[in-house]
Amino acid sequence: MIIVMKNENAAQNLAKALDTHNPIKPVFVHQNRIGLAGVKQIDDAQLADFKDDVVEVITNHHGAIKSSRDFHPEDTIIKTKHSIIGGDHFVFMAGPDSIESAEHVLEMGKDVQLAGATILRGGAFKPRTSPYSFQGNGEDGLKAHRQAADTLQMDMVTEILDTRDVDLVDQYTDIFQVGTRNMQNFALLKALGQKNKPVVLKRGMSATIDDLLNAAEYIAAGGNDQIILMERGIRTFDNKYTRNTMDVSAIPVLKSLTHYPVIADSSHAAGVSKFVEPIGLAAVAAGAQGLMTEIHDHPKEAFVDGAQALTPEQFKQLADKVRRVRTAIQ
Amino acid sequence: MIIVMKNENAAQNLAKALDTHNPIKPVFVHQNRIGLAGVKQIDDAQLADFKDDVVEVITNHHGAIKSSRDFHPEDTIIKTKHSIIGGDHFVFMAGPDSIESAEHVLEMGKDVQLAGATILRGGAFKPRTSPYSFQGNGEDGLKAHRQAADTLQMDMVTEILDTRDVDLVDQYTDIFQVGTRNMQNFALLKALGQKNKPVVLKRGMSATIDDLLNAAEYIAAGGNDQIILMERGIRTFDNKYTRNTMDVSAIPVLKSLTHYPVIADSSHAAGVSKFVEPIGLAAVAAGAQGLMTEIHDHPKEAFVDGAQALTPEQFKQLADKVRRVRTAIQ
Amino acid sequence: MIIVMKNENAAQNLAKALDTHNPIKPVFVHQNRIGLAGVKQIDDAQLADFKDDVVEVITNHHGAIKSSRDFHPEDTIIKTKHSIIGGDHFVFMAGPDSIESAEHVLEMGKDVQLAGATILRGGAFKPRTSPYSFQGNGEDGLKAHRQAADTLQMDMVTEILDTRDVDLVDQYTDIFQVGTRNMQNFALLKALGQKNKPVVLKRGMSATIDDLLNAAEYIAAGGNDQIILMERGIRTFDNKYTRNTMDVSAIPVLKSLTHYPVIADSSHAAGVSKFVEPIGLAAVAAGAQGLMTEIHDHPKEAFVDGAQALTPEQFKQLADKVRRVRTAIQ
Amino acid sequence: MIIVMKNENAAQNLAKALDTHNPIKPVFVHQNRIGLAGVKQIDDAQLADFKDDVVEVITNHHGAIKSSRDFHPEDTIIKTKHSIIGGDHFVFMAGPDSIESAEHVLEMGKDVQLAGATILRGGAFKPRTSPYSFQGNGEDGLKAHRQAADTLQMDMVTEILDTRDVDLVDQYTDIFQVGTRNMQNFALLKALGQKNKPVVLKRGMSATIDDLLNAAEYIAAGGNDQIILMERGIRTFDNKYTRNTMDVSAIPVLKSLTHYPVIADSSHAAGVSKFVEPIGLAAVAAGAQGLMTEIHDHPKEAFVDGAQALTPEQFKQLADKVRRVRTAIQ
Repeated sequence: MIIVMKNENAAQNLAKALDTHNPIKPVFVHQNRIGLAGVKQIDDAQLADFKDDVVEVITNHHGAIKSSRDFHPEDTIIKTKHSIIGGDHFVFMAGPDSIESAEHVLEMGKDVQLAGATILRGGAFKPRTSPYSFQGNGEDGLKAHRQAADTLQMDMVTEILDTRDVDLVDQYTDIFQVGTRNMQNFALLKALGQKNKPVVLKRGMSATIDDLLNAAEYIAAGGNDQIILMERGIRTFDNKYTRNTMDVSAIPVLKSLTHYPVIADSSHAAGVSKFVEPIGLAAVAAGAQGLMTEIHDHPKEAFVDGAQALTPEQFKQLADKVRRVRTAIQ
Repeated sequence: MIIVMKNENAAQNLAKALDTHNPIKPVFVHQNRIGLAGVKQIDDAQLADFKDDVVEVITNHHGAIKSSRDFHPEDTIIKTKHSIIGGDHFVFMAGPDSIESAEHVLEMGKDVQLAGATILRGGAFKPRTSPYSFQGNGEDGLKAHRQAADTLQMDMVTEILDTRDVDLVDQYTDIFQVGTRNMQNFALLKALGQKNKPVVLKRGMSATIDDLLNAAEYIAAGGNDQIILMERGIRTFDNKYTRNTMDVSAIPVLKSLTHYPVIADSSHAAGVSKFVEPIGLAAVAAGAQGLMTEIHDHPKEAFVDGAQALTPEQFKQLADKVRRVRTAIQ
Repeated sequence: MIIVMKNENAAQNLAKALDTHNPIKPVFVHQNRIGLAGVKQIDDAQLADFKDDVVEVITNHHGAIKSSRDFHPEDTIIKTKHSIIGGDHFVFMAGPDSIESAEHVLEMGKDVQLAGATILRGGAFKPRTSPYSFQGNGEDGLKAHRQAADTLQMDMVTEILDTRDVDLVDQYTDIFQVGTRNMQNFALLKALGQKNKPVVLKRGMSATIDDLLNAAEYIAAGGNDQIILMERGIRTFDNKYTRNTMDVSAIPVLKSLTHYPVIADSSHAAGVSKFVEPIGLAAVAAGAQGLMTEIHDHPKEAFVDGAQALTPEQFKQLADKVRRVRTAIQ
Repeated sequence: MIIVMKNENAAQNLAKALDTHNPIKPVFVHQNRIGLAGVKQIDDAQLADFKDDVVEVITNHHGAIKSSRDFHPEDTIIKTKHSIIGGDHFVFMAGPDSIESAEHVLEMGKDVQLAGATILRGGAFKPRTSPYSFQGNGEDGLKAHRQAADTLQMDMVTEILDTRDVDLVDQYTDIFQVGTRNMQNFALLKALGQKNKPVVLKRGMSATIDDLLNAAEYIAAGGNDQIILMERGIRTFDNKYTRNTMDVSAIPVLKSLTHYPVIADSSHAAGVSKFVEPIGLAAVAAGAQGLMTEIHDHPKEAFVDGAQALTPEQFKQLADKVRRVRTAIQ
């Protein structure tokens, strides 16, 4: 339940009165709004003393509280050292699928930076379908990635797979990434809720919009509001020609329901390099506030997912078109 | 199987030799290419006399023949009285969901024409989920629709539901439309294959890309090559906030596999007017060669599907943005 | 809206008063129950004179009227010349996918009859994904099928694809079948609503339960209440090992919502003969009131869908197990 | 790649020669069979010395190695203190969704044991969609659960959500359970691969059969072959009347591809208690080797998922029917 009060002061006062010290059902305040987690009804008696200050009681907002636009109407804007994410800003996150070597990630970083990327992506811990596939270079990968980001003055984003690795990865990265297979790894989400660092949360392959917002809420409930939601394609009945089905509708839907930035990953949605550009442009035209893209200078030799990697040249062309589409839809 | 020959003459000669007069497995010729329907292997002996003229034998093309780019590499461009569809052209098809009255469809036609539409859409036979919902105004609707199109010098497109109505609808319309629920109504597709008039073929809610191409092939096999494919959203696990899931990936995929024009209907994909624009722009950014849009001056009073109708003003704004996105992606 | 009256007489009286002569929104009566099609609210004034006779006004029944258990609480039982379908009865419909010859369908009929089938299935008009696949033997097939059914004293069920063929097929068959691709071919459903003959209505590949009930309602609204619903597998993200996903849940769900018999087709659900038995037994354990099964004495030479055909011996084994499972779940 | 050798000795010899000491691509031996993880081709030269002992080289087995029937043809049978799982044995796992109190779990345990269950289920760590829902009683829950199991001489199975809890849960439980949302939490699977204790692995909501087998392989690759696969309903377009779509086909498919026991959870598939029985019986008729069922004496007051809980009486009736169906299908 969300209660809109006359002003911030009134909100603080009511919140204090309502606070139940129940860790499962906390009371949140944002400006003149109060969010009552897990509460669907409230006694009139409880509001009696504050009656004149209550503007509106909203019970039919979507499932989550802190992630709801009804609780937090204005866009969340996240500032990292080298990037601004959300609102009218647009961000490119690009880089290799996995960190292959210090030289390679640096080389790739230079290329994507030239095309406009400010965030260097790359995986050190890779969630592979088979245990017999390359699982990533681990801490060595993190180190190489960090070094490249520092050299280039870019932000670093990398995936985290295990609650036990949160502190390790935290030592290196600027932005955590939670992958599609872990979107409902609630232990991991809770652990990231304790960190004061942005988290890119990828939508699960069969996660509904509400599932995604609730997953974000796990992070937010812990106190970390720097959340970036990512649409990356869902699983449907048709996957012969593309790996997943980019659900572009999710982008405007999410933007209407939540204040968190919404970005897209057309590399994983497409799964085939020749469709990464049109699908990426579609996401941007639908309102995505950023794009994550996998690149590789020699896609056929990539350790992971080469088939979907753009070459640096292809990425530059995509980035140019993205900027033009951004202008076109304003 | 598709056989590429040295030149058109050689293709004609081989085709004559191969022709089996089997109505189920016809032999098609397009320029220097031969399409052997339903044939996966061919005796070397059959090709022996023509060996020197054979450039390539393609067996791994996608399921259909006439619809395949391997058979017909260049874009099909369809010309109606007032429109050019396909290739680098872009077409707006717009109008009310159902034809409500002669005055109303004319009024709506004026509005969409002002915004750039050359094709006036409207339903006289409505495929409704429930038998107790308004089923359309039938032949009266066709007449009013025809009259409005003539007055405005626009093309008319309308849905056909029943093989028994093909000749009736043919008397009025410029373009037939086959709806999502009839995409595999093979009797209807065959009947339209006998007509010399464009057909808009909407993708079925759970039709794969291959299903859609095979449905098109039913029309093409009958001799009618004026086919326009339409992506209109598929059915997935998530339909709380939108009616369907617009599968933008299908657009570049189809354009790579087939030469027929590919357009999109973001009204039915969204199901909610506020998402019709971003989803429509996404389809255009993905490469759609046209957009079909439902409009209504008083959406709340529309006979059918008012929730997803744009007002004329909203449609004008969409059309303007579409033109800008088209420029942006070139 | 469904209104339960004190008794049949009261229902007839109120129905007469309410009848609007609106063909789209008819008033139905079944025993002491009135179904008001397409009506969600009713003026108290309209019920005023009959107030004492009204037991209950049901507005939250599922979408359809005549197909609803709230309108027709007891099971519909359909009697054909040789079979009883519905209620506690169980029916086997079996035979070849397509009618290949008079001899072959007779042979297959003998085999399935020995195993307990009373209804001989077979297709004369085949809905094939590709126009270049065998399309069925047409009227010759119908004749052979009829002859075999007569010889064996079995009922005949065959698929109808085209409204123009309804009278032709009607001359031969005992039971019409509407296939998955035509479940929402409303023109066809309406035409069958005018016949006084059972219709097997197969669920569409992506049809919801409500879609299926509304499709049945198209037949029922026309006056034909002899409807048999069939679950045959839906389209999902996983179709590597089976052709479709048998949705066994649909069986008890449908039986709770509607009074029409619910049967299952595990041949098309499986798509592979070795899974036809376990999936068929699952459907029976879930409460299916009949099973449709494809058989062939030489599956590899079958004109259509040989991969999923059981041999007569396999069918006999399945039928024996089905009878045992039926007993087990009572 | 799987290589079948003449005998066990020959297999050991070849395995020794092939062993690459590559932790990502280990060499496994089972009786006379060798599994080469992540290997798709092998030099003839490498086999030259053992040529006469090679019976068959299988390259087209499904993705995983240790989980493949081609590597391990006979059923895996898992023995716990009080249960035998797999082969021709059938196991009931039942109990409350969450452990509410020591008294309650003991009470529920008594009830399910009377009906034939040997394994007592219950959650101490609950994966809830919302962070504001009850998250389980944690270690107190584990203790109460353990105590009840000991008192009743039953096995205990409980869900594990976090790699950091593996050792804690290991102190209490007899069988680990990995839930649908963690099926591809590879860090957790690897951690469980290090334990010498059975693991129930629930299929992810949109996991393909191959995904599930590969997830199992993560556990197996670590050395733990006591894996029990569970079908619990997948996510499809239709979820109005049931929570998920029980994919019964997966059961015979899995049994044909892998040697691990395959069980089903009809409580989560149904989501509504009245459909738990028919869907459960369907799973058993399809060949499931066990059933997991949620029960509660006062479903409406259950802490979690009361809507889908059977009462002890309902469970007893289900268990009786299950035993009869088991006999029926033999």
